Amino acid sequence: MAYTAIELIETKRDGGSLTPEAIDWLIRAYTDGTVTDYQMAAMAMAIFIRGLDADELAAWTKAMLHSGEVLDLSQITAAKVDKHSTGGVGDKISLPLAPLVASVGVVVPMMSGRGLGHTGGTLDKLESVPGFTTRLESDEFRRILTAHGLVLAGQTEALVPADRKLYALRDATGTVPSLPLIASSIMSKKLAEGLDGLVLDVKTGSGAFMKDLEGSRELARTMVDIGARAGVDTVAIISWMGQPLGREVGNANELREAIDVLRGEGPEDVVELTLTLGEMMLDLAGIEGGRKTLSEAIESGKALQKLTDVVVAQGGDPSAIENPDLLPVCPHEAVITAPRDGYVTRCDALTVGVAATRLGAGRERQEDTIDPGVGITLEAKVGDRVQSGQPLARARYSDTARWQAQEAALASAWTIEDTAPGPQALIVERVDPGS
Amino acid sequence: MAYTAIELIETKRDGGSLTPEAIDWLIRAYTDGTVTDYQMAAMAMAIFIRGLDADELAAWTKAMLHSGEVLDLSQITAAKVDKHSTGGVGDKISLPLAPLVASVGVVVPMMSGRGLGHTGGTLDKLESVPGFTTRLESDEFRRILTAHGLVLAGQTEALVPADRKLYALRDATGTVPSLPLIASSIMSKKLAEGLDGLVLDVKTGSGAFMKDLEGSRELARTMVDIGARAGVDTVAIISWMGQPLGREVGNANELREAIDVLRGEGPEDVVELTLTLGEMMLDLAGIEGGRKTLSEAIESGKALQKLTDVVVAQGGDPSAIENPDLLPVCPHEAVITAPRDGYVTRCDALTVGVAATRLGAGRERQEDTIDPGVGITLEAKVGDRVQSGQPLARARYSDTARWQAQEAALASAWTIEDTAPGPQALIVERVDPGS
Repeated sequence: MAYTAIELIETKRDGGSLTPEAIDWLIRAYTDGTVTDYQMAAMAMAIFIRGLDADELAAWTKAMLHSGEVLDLSQITAAKVDKHSTGGVGDKISLPLAPLVASVGVVVPMMSGRGLGHTGGTLDKLESVPGFTTRLESDEFRRILTAHGLVLAGQTEALVPADRKLYALRDATGTVPSLPLIASSIMSKKLAEGLDGLVLDVKTGSGAFMKDLEGSRELARTMVDIGARAGVDTVAIISWMGQPLGREVGNANELREAIDVLRGEGPEDVVELTLTLGEMMLDLAGIEGGRKTLSEAIESGKALQKLTDVVVAQGGDPSAIENPDLLPVCPHEAVITAPRDGYVTRCDALTVGVAATRLGAGRERQEDTIDPGVGITLEAKVGDRVQSGQPLARARYSDTARWQAQEAALASAWTIEDTAPGPQALIVERVDPGS
Repeated sequence: MAYTAIELIETKRDGGSLTPEAIDWLIRAYTDGTVTDYQMAAMAMAIFIRGLDADELAAWTKAMLHSGEVLDLSQITAAKVDKHSTGGVGDKISLPLAPLVASVGVVVPMMSGRGLGHTGGTLDKLESVPGFTTRLESDEFRRILTAHGLVLAGQTEALVPADRKLYALRDATGTVPSLPLIASSIMSKKLAEGLDGLVLDVKTGSGAFMKDLEGSRELARTMVDIGARAGVDTVAIISWMGQPLGREVGNANELREAIDVLRGEGPEDVVELTLTLGEMMLDLAGIEGGRKTLSEAIESGKALQKLTDVVVAQGGDPSAIENPDLLPVCPHEAVITAPRDGYVTRCDALTVGVAATRLGAGRERQEDTIDPGVGITLEAKVGDRVQSGQPLARARYSDTARWQAQEAALASAWTIEDTAPGPQALIVERVDPGS
């Protein structure tokens, strides 16, 4: 069947639905250049405003997924399960979670992204380990996964080329925050990993992409539905990202905190989220024992060993895992102190994330380089009682001018009041298929 | 003030308004390539769906108008008035109208377009005259206008470059039929002519761009408002384009009919519309006498002489005006006959226009060449009583295969019924500033 870009744009522009065949043609033609960037930009804006219904979205995701290579992991018979987070500040959960579940038998073919904007990226955090490479070709990826049941890599060039092209276009045309385009972008990449199961951690709150619960819920439901339609068991939780996760923000800082978790010493919220998501992954993989099995893998050192093994397999220096003090750290330290006595009622994730990014921990543009040793350590979080002059945070940085530009902004992340705040659940709700 | 394309796209995407400064920056940056085609495509789609308010539209038109050269006709002190039609089938009104009003003292710096789709273009019709050139540089344009009070040209490359670029982009991205983008495209080109007054003929009905009266009315009001805000006296009429105008469709055919009008022999509807628009142009130019003055200019031969003078000034062969039989005509003729007795209740403009285009009178794509000798002569129009077998139309063509492909389609333009149709006003209404 022959289509033209214009007729499909007109259909969506006027609020109509595109057939699966038309979507398939469009994504293929965009990938090979038959449909131009300016035509796809008009389509992306029409989709931004008009939306995609569930059938269109399933077809769109499938077409994206098949725009390039799909990993063939059929030789690995064990259940392959991955986790994806929509991203937040201090969200280092993949780092302890993947080795932990892999150490008890889940096969985890994890492909992660880089940080952009105020959120960090798993690849950047991993690259704090000297020598560690996240650029793996498909054969290498499969080899490490087969040997260790775990691989921690970036997306290969051959996977989902349509998404790379479309994401760059959306980034330049004001069409990034479109729920169907976000959901299909995430899910096409995850489904290209050849998974049996997928756990989604959809963040909500100031540091999340979706600030409000209703939007987060819709995104979670949409992705769970796409997974179900693609035949991959998919479950989601919605977790709170009003304040940063854990005590550490920044690449080497977060890897250190992840190692703490695998040593049984991590902060409560990071441990809780890791175990919750880990249990869900075990369930999807059909492995029994739940949280108990996971705790034992931490206590026995098996989980940490799994991380060390994979670091070695991917060219990294294992001494940095054994002794996290060897990880990069910036020369200068400054402290933010409490201006008064009281209870911390707000420790704003977005504010902390933006300050960390601008200090050099992240990228404001794709071409920026990051400094792995930049970090913010939170000394007081929501609910903590503080006294005037007590540290709220310690920042590590290389560039004093940058620190001076960020100091006041970072300090504004905290609100201190006389009365303690009400409770805030970390895990807000769970979203199962058909819910 | 510095802007980015993305922030402006986001504003319009979310239904906000753009400031005049932002619009000015956007059009300038698009013209010089700082804003890319794909960014402008996203913006055009956002405008298509969200619209532009009156302030934005005035700023958008002004920015387009100033994207290139603006004709400086200040040395010509007489009132400069032009007419623009939104285009229809058999709409040759510019051809008799411009020389007619110029012959009584209105200065008419007319820049016209080419036919595209089912509608004809004034430039194509004029080029039926051997040797006549419509490509004039600004100096030549001004020289002829100064000498004759009339010039009939195409838009120069230097005028409104943003419109040429944006129109081509809209054509490829499904964003042509956007009222604000249509209105600003038309008005920016007309305002770049350095006019004192402008008369708009907004068509309504099957052969018009706007098929329904409400849309035509909104387009007319929008353009009249843009003109008023730009300080150019602008008035509009809405005229019926349910059936073709006059008896002739096709380039040389329409020029012949135009010459008939200037000889006092044109069909009633063409004469009526020419005089109505002519009176409006006289009013705007502050020239008294109205319709009587115009009729005298036709009777005295002054109006026809003005056309002849300008044809000579633009390199054309005047003998083709004196003897229109010298104009091109195709070798083959075929007749469409009435299948039954009755009254013509429909003679569909769109159907006739599409058939004429496909026979070679127009362009389906910009790169197509036209055949000036292709034409359709309508022998029966709405309200006429016909007998079975009587001719409804005569077609002239060069390519028999094309005729065979169009014959049935052309015949389908007519509906013949037992009872005569109700009256249909040619001039539906007038739209003045502030109405």
